[in-house]
Amino acid sequence: MSPLAQPENRFDDIPSSGAWRVGDPPAWRQFLRVAGEGRRFALEGGGCLDEVDVAYESWGTLDAEASNAVLVCHALTGDAHAAGPSGPGQAAAGWWDDLIGPGKAIDTDQFYVVCANVLGGCQGTTGPASPHPDDGEPYGSRFPIVSVRDTVRTQAALADALGIRRWAAVVGGSVGGMQAIEWAVMYPDRVGSMINIASAVSASPLQIGWSMVGRLAIVQDPKWSDGNYYDQGIGGGPHLGLMLARRIAQLHYRSDQSFADRFGRSSVDRLDSFNLWDRFQIESYLDHHGQKLAKRFDANTYLVLNKAMDLHDIGRGRGGYEAAIARISCPSLVVSVSSDALYTPRQQRELHKLLTEAGAEVCFETIESDHGHDGFLIEFDQLEPVLGKFLAKQAR
Amino acid sequence: MSPLAQPENRFDDIPSSGAWRVGDPPAWRQFLRVAGEGRRFALEGGGCLDEVDVAYESWGTLDAEASNAVLVCHALTGDAHAAGPSGPGQAAAGWWDDLIGPGKAIDTDQFYVVCANVLGGCQGTTGPASPHPDDGEPYGSRFPIVSVRDTVRTQAALADALGIRRWAAVVGGSVGGMQAIEWAVMYPDRVGSMINIASAVSASPLQIGWSMVGRLAIVQDPKWSDGNYYDQGIGGGPHLGLMLARRIAQLHYRSDQSFADRFGRSSVDRLDSFNLWDRFQIESYLDHHGQKLAKRFDANTYLVLNKAMDLHDIGRGRGGYEAAIARISCPSLVVSVSSDALYTPRQQRELHKLLTEAGAEVCFETIESDHGHDGFLIEFDQLEPVLGKFLAKQAR
Repeated sequence: MSPLAQPENRFDDIPSSGAWRVGDPPAWRQFLRVAGEGRRFALEGGGCLDEVDVAYESWGTLDAEASNAVLVCHALTGDAHAAGPSGPGQAAAGWWDDLIGPGKAIDTDQFYVVCANVLGGCQGTTGPASPHPDDGEPYGSRFPIVSVRDTVRTQAALADALGIRRWAAVVGGSVGGMQAIEWAVMYPDRVGSMINIASAVSASPLQIGWSMVGRLAIVQDPKWSDGNYYDQGIGGGPHLGLMLARRIAQLHYRSDQSFADRFGRSSVDRLDSFNLWDRFQIESYLDHHGQKLAKRFDANTYLVLNKAMDLHDIGRGRGGYEAAIARISCPSLVVSVSSDALYTPRQQRELHKLLTEAGAEVCFETIESDHGHDGFLIEFDQLEPVLGKFLAKQAR
Repeated sequence: MSPLAQPENRFDDIPSSGAWRVGDPPAWRQFLRVAGEGRRFALEGGGCLDEVDVAYESWGTLDAEASNAVLVCHALTGDAHAAGPSGPGQAAAGWWDDLIGPGKAIDTDQFYVVCANVLGGCQGTTGPASPHPDDGEPYGSRFPIVSVRDTVRTQAALADALGIRRWAAVVGGSVGGMQAIEWAVMYPDRVGSMINIASAVSASPLQIGWSMVGRLAIVQDPKWSDGNYYDQGIGGGPHLGLMLARRIAQLHYRSDQSFADRFGRSSVDRLDSFNLWDRFQIESYLDHHGQKLAKRFDANTYLVLNKAMDLHDIGRGRGGYEAAIARISCPSLVVSVSSDALYTPRQQRELHKLLTEAGAEVCFETIESDHGHDGFLIEFDQLEPVLGKFLAKQAR
């Protein structure tokens, strides 16, 4: 083999891009039809969707006054399974299972907790892989660009259907935090409190740049086929592109220090003969995370949600940040992760400053961590008391 | 056009991947044959090259004792043109033109300054685009993996040819700093002093990860053609892959703060109708840097030099960092850039600590900058006195 040539494909076991649609959804997943049968869902960017279903999960019991509901908003590649075990159709336990449950920070003995898959998603809510009402074929590249505000409006429809006029709290990290702050701006009388973790009032140019390179990694994969890859069989679809996008993301989700501590310069292959594709451990780790995402996530959803993230700007059409923030009337908790290189502490300080200057009630907490942006999915020992204390105060 | 589909190719003006070989080299570029005519160049990773030419430039005058020579080592996509104007065959002025020249920090009234293109490069020194001696066709994927140590040995051969037994100083930033420290370890009696900027004793897992995703961006471009793309015409070659690699790099070469200050959320396209490929200014900036590199750089060189960077480890085969550092006998200057997210200050502190513990004479300076790793190519006002002072002290 010539020195630069790649070894045989190490990723043969990735199933078809339609894998996330194969099989029955987990029994605990519920669905609400938000649009359909002639009722259309208008989108912020223009156009509309003729059918919208929202997949969600819930934990705990709604009280008689519907006053104890908490909305948890998921991040880019998350889904409605915020808590609970893994099971058929759900490869991993809930992404915040350490924080949501009886006696936990978001205490399901006290709160009724709801989490819904975002619009454009691939875990039950209508997205690019969903059947187009016109022909029953997946939308593919016909799926429109949706915004965080569009997702929030699907969640408001869900709240209506569940009989929840006002959330005790809306909570989210990262893109979930973008939803949380849009909730507080769009529906100030429906949000009792807001918890905003490792997020921002708008996407920064650095975030937009990372989003762009991830999107390019996908569309430059010839198997992306202009977004219409759903009929390709096993091994079809832009897995290599999506894996590359995930590797890129995984690198800026963490930090120099965390990788240095964890991997150093260990290798999984022998490195003494200097081949281009012999791997250090960090490379094998990135391969693993790329494969894992490619098995559970739709590349078109990745494109659509990244663009929604780029377009996040609470000031858009509202006369700027200050005017938007002035609409917020609830108490807020803003949380930073000290080593976050993607949603940097600069951005949470900006949100905190805007809330303070608007005269809102706001707390600021920093999670001291080497785990970078992913700290909000890892540092449960620190998040538990921070969230628990704030929510307990709101409930009083 | 469907919402997700890409607009027509915006990058039609990128010439063939062989463009860097088209036309005559600049008149100021000189060449030395290091191997050839039966004299082979053995490589650290095994194997050898039958022919090696080294392209270099020089400024100032070597004194009678050959005691005033300074070797400047370039970074990943740099070349021998460290100083001087642009001209035919050289699109930009020297990458350190602000620091090298009469009366400047590296004062050519005092020093004879040399800079050579690295082994595996694409700016005159033998690399993947060079003709293979067997058939006169470009090496392409036949080019071997080379190491920083291999490059240093080409530079030692150049020093021999120029009559320089001992450099007054070896200076480098980033990958150039990897060469500088290898010089001090490999040839302690030939290095009078060492300046090491924004570099490291070994590549960190974060650096290796970024290197890997850049390499994948190239080889996943179908036009890479297993590295044998040199016969493709205009528009041939893995430009899109190389552009993606460069966009990725450009993002971690800078910082959140510098992009926020420079671009904010400005856009070059109208964003009100939410199309996937309408661009914020940061996206257009990344396109520009991608195109610029694709016009002047060879994708295979990018692969080879990134791997050389990953393999950089002064302790390899020497019993660890401490044993390697113990060989260094010259005074050193170690420089950090405060916001460097790629070669983080952690790494320069590690080098400084190792040198200090070995009893070496070492200074440490920090460049306060928001420009990230690229600070060493931008913050001349701060670098000028730091380098000037150190070199003046060595010359006394």
